[in-house]
Amino acid sequence: MTHTPSRPAYTRLASTFSRLHRLGHLASLAHWDQAAMMPPKGNDARGAALAELDVLMHGMMTAPELAGLLAEADTESVGEFERANLSEMRRAWERANALPASLVEAQALAHSRCEHAWRSQRPANDWAGFRENLREVVRLSREEGQRLAGLGGGSVYEALMNKYEPGMRCDRLDAVFGAMRDWLPDLIARIRDKQAGETVVAAQGPFPIETQRALGLDVMEMLGFDFAAGRLDVSNHPFCGGVPEDVRITTRYEEGDFLQSLLGIIHETGHARYEQNLPREWLGQPAGLARSMGIHESQSLSFEMQLGRSRGFLGLLAPRLRARFGDQPAFETENLIRLCTRVEPGFIRVDADEASYPAHVILRYEIERALMDGDIEVDDIPALWDEKMSRYLGVDTRGNYRNGCMQDIHWTTGGFGYFPSYTLGALYAAQYFATLRTATPDLDQRIVNGELSVVFDWLKDAIWSQASRWSTAELVERATGEALDPRHFRAHLEARYLGGVA
Amino acid sequence: MTHTPSRPAYTRLASTFSRLHRLGHLASLAHWDQAAMMPPKGNDARGAALAELDVLMHGMMTAPELAGLLAEADTESVGEFERANLSEMRRAWERANALPASLVEAQALAHSRCEHAWRSQRPANDWAGFRENLREVVRLSREEGQRLAGLGGGSVYEALMNKYEPGMRCDRLDAVFGAMRDWLPDLIARIRDKQAGETVVAAQGPFPIETQRALGLDVMEMLGFDFAAGRLDVSNHPFCGGVPEDVRITTRYEEGDFLQSLLGIIHETGHARYEQNLPREWLGQPAGLARSMGIHESQSLSFEMQLGRSRGFLGLLAPRLRARFGDQPAFETENLIRLCTRVEPGFIRVDADEASYPAHVILRYEIERALMDGDIEVDDIPALWDEKMSRYLGVDTRGNYRNGCMQDIHWTTGGFGYFPSYTLGALYAAQYFATLRTATPDLDQRIVNGELSVVFDWLKDAIWSQASRWSTAELVERATGEALDPRHFRAHLEARYLGGVA
Repeated sequence: MTHTPSRPAYTRLASTFSRLHRLGHLASLAHWDQAAMMPPKGNDARGAALAELDVLMHGMMTAPELAGLLAEADTESVGEFERANLSEMRRAWERANALPASLVEAQALAHSRCEHAWRSQRPANDWAGFRENLREVVRLSREEGQRLAGLGGGSVYEALMNKYEPGMRCDRLDAVFGAMRDWLPDLIARIRDKQAGETVVAAQGPFPIETQRALGLDVMEMLGFDFAAGRLDVSNHPFCGGVPEDVRITTRYEEGDFLQSLLGIIHETGHARYEQNLPREWLGQPAGLARSMGIHESQSLSFEMQLGRSRGFLGLLAPRLRARFGDQPAFETENLIRLCTRVEPGFIRVDADEASYPAHVILRYEIERALMDGDIEVDDIPALWDEKMSRYLGVDTRGNYRNGCMQDIHWTTGGFGYFPSYTLGALYAAQYFATLRTATPDLDQRIVNGELSVVFDWLKDAIWSQASRWSTAELVERATGEALDPRHFRAHLEARYLGGVA
Repeated sequence: MTHTPSRPAYTRLASTFSRLHRLGHLASLAHWDQAAMMPPKGNDARGAALAELDVLMHGMMTAPELAGLLAEADTESVGEFERANLSEMRRAWERANALPASLVEAQALAHSRCEHAWRSQRPANDWAGFRENLREVVRLSREEGQRLAGLGGGSVYEALMNKYEPGMRCDRLDAVFGAMRDWLPDLIARIRDKQAGETVVAAQGPFPIETQRALGLDVMEMLGFDFAAGRLDVSNHPFCGGVPEDVRITTRYEEGDFLQSLLGIIHETGHARYEQNLPREWLGQPAGLARSMGIHESQSLSFEMQLGRSRGFLGLLAPRLRARFGDQPAFETENLIRLCTRVEPGFIRVDADEASYPAHVILRYEIERALMDGDIEVDDIPALWDEKMSRYLGVDTRGNYRNGCMQDIHWTTGGFGYFPSYTLGALYAAQYFATLRTATPDLDQRIVNGELSVVFDWLKDAIWSQASRWSTAELVERATGEALDPRHFRAHLEARYLGGVA
């Protein structure tokens, strides 16, 4: 055994990806700052700086020598991690090289125009104006998808979705979402019947922003967030950004409602702990990154939904609310549980409860897939939206584009294929907790006792420490002993919303 | 006249420098964040990211084609601004190419080691430990200075100082500082005699941080800071950073003392307005940058010293202090003036009053110049320090390295040649106000009335809008009608501290 293994091609590739990681650090920071700190007049200069860095990084990724190095490295003797890393490198390289710079530039332009106009078109309910820009975004995304599909087969939509969920196939999603589409409306109806007779006391504000922030920091601490390696700030759209070594989460506060911000903080803390616990020795290499957006979402939803809205956790929260905001009937644990598990189908995905949420995602999946694969056109969207909202959630969105098909930012910037990640995350999270509950039969009591490390230790071992060394399917199977199975999510909903437990 | 002038070399150079400006945006942001926002565990990754960007930018600056382009552009027909820009480009290019990468790397390493160790060696008064690291920093700075001196003649020290003050010569500094060294100690003694009989009431805290911040924002507003293009935050060492399009200033608060922070904010706002008012059409080009560190300091000192501690301005401040902190005797205008113009020689440069400050700078100039030019060695510093502190300020620093020659960060990171900028700034600022007072005989009454735009308009016209299109000497002469003349500063001190006016 030698300390300087003869793998020159791999070593050079690893060094190139380390350089990309370091430059990516600056891009991440600049994006976070843009959302959380930057004053408005800084925007043009920021955009120009980020575009310049993009060009540089794209140039490094498309440098001619990488093709030869990747081929050579495949013949070198490397270990298991390095093998996985090479495969991730190749994936990133193929995708960067599949798209001509002219397309990337045209997309950047079209996205920026569509998203910018959408900010005023949405409040104006201006579908006619919006669809003009969206058509161009769709045309370019189809071209992108066609080029990406050329790499590995599969449909245009699948190729786009694989940017966020590498390896996921539409037939698998169809099976999973198809089953859910069958049982979900009935389950929601049963939950609503059961909840119809409940009394829920709303919390009485105002809840001063500074106190909300202090409470948020308490809860982050309780959830194991490392404040020496991250921050909490404010932005219009909450997100988790920064870099694994320095994770920046954001929230937004409303004086009249502390719950939205608090649950958002719990959600982002889940993302943050994943990033903060990626293995340090692999940082900078593609296989050292978080596995996929679905797996990322499974962490935030493990925190927000599985743990955060559990009876035990809300019991821990109640005294903290009283300490921060004073006592009031809404803060009784039983009432807090009812507040956090209220099922009420509505227009807006981001405001949806745990049971309705998948319906919002399935509807978008069906529409965006048909749109990318050329089965429908932009003009067909509103009618399909109305029909599906009515069928899945019993909600009437006709003529209400603003709270209908114009509500999300994703499509304005060509993010077709992203939506499934949200529900995949919910399914994975339910499956983790089923596994965890089998391994730790007193899980709920441990949570009641505040022994939250039982959850964190499992997630760290099964998910965080694994980064991208396995495919998503392998990662989930290693963690839970089986392939993705949506029955765990169904069982979770039934237990929490109909069974009166957890 | 044509809209596409035939100047292909200049155009390509301008495009390269625009790219460097955009990448520099990311470096500035990352430095600001490191000081104002970053949690400690992010430091290594930040350092690596910044070093990577440095390498990239240095590579662009030393690309072989630039030499030919610069030579070619000199033969092209360009306008006055472009000519100035080419000269600034050449200066930047020559300096970047004069230093081998190995030296730059060795310096980065030595500076980081020396500065890091200094943070604990200074409080421990550990001169013996500190000098070991400082010797290496000095050795490398001498090499840097020798290489830079090779470009344009002059001494090693001059070449280093010219990084901050392009075109300034030591014989000029010797004349200016030499004269001051002759009259300053006596002037300080006379001021102290006069002030010995005065009663000064100290302000009674605590002054809550949030209120101090609100007051700081008030005063920035009053001073014309553009909040749509900048921010106020907190850092350990106050500074003005960011980019001209988005200027970030910082301060630090102490509950017991609002004046330090407030005067610091006024100081940084002077730097900020210079940056915020650099001409937009030149941004990204070297001649569009602030002229020099001395000119930058002349803006902060115009704000903090000339305007900020004037009778008229303190009269405007007094009611704002009462509104924020409640009434107390210390906030009477006359007392406030006495508080802000108290002359008391002490150990620490950054805490020094307006009259003692130059003595701190002259002492450092004399020592660092001798050190760089090889006339003394590191071991000679403490004795020289003691002797000069005693002679210029009557202060005994023997054995007190911590508050003596180890008090500043500059030398730890090789910043030899920077100190003169502080006093040059004070001299320029006094000269501006002498000009302004001649042009506007009722200047002091206008300030009393709160008509501060009379000051800002003059600075904008004379300095801010000129960026680097003239040499420093030309800029000052255009602004004030004469070359740098320290008698204006002396007259200012005599009027303010002995004459009972302004």
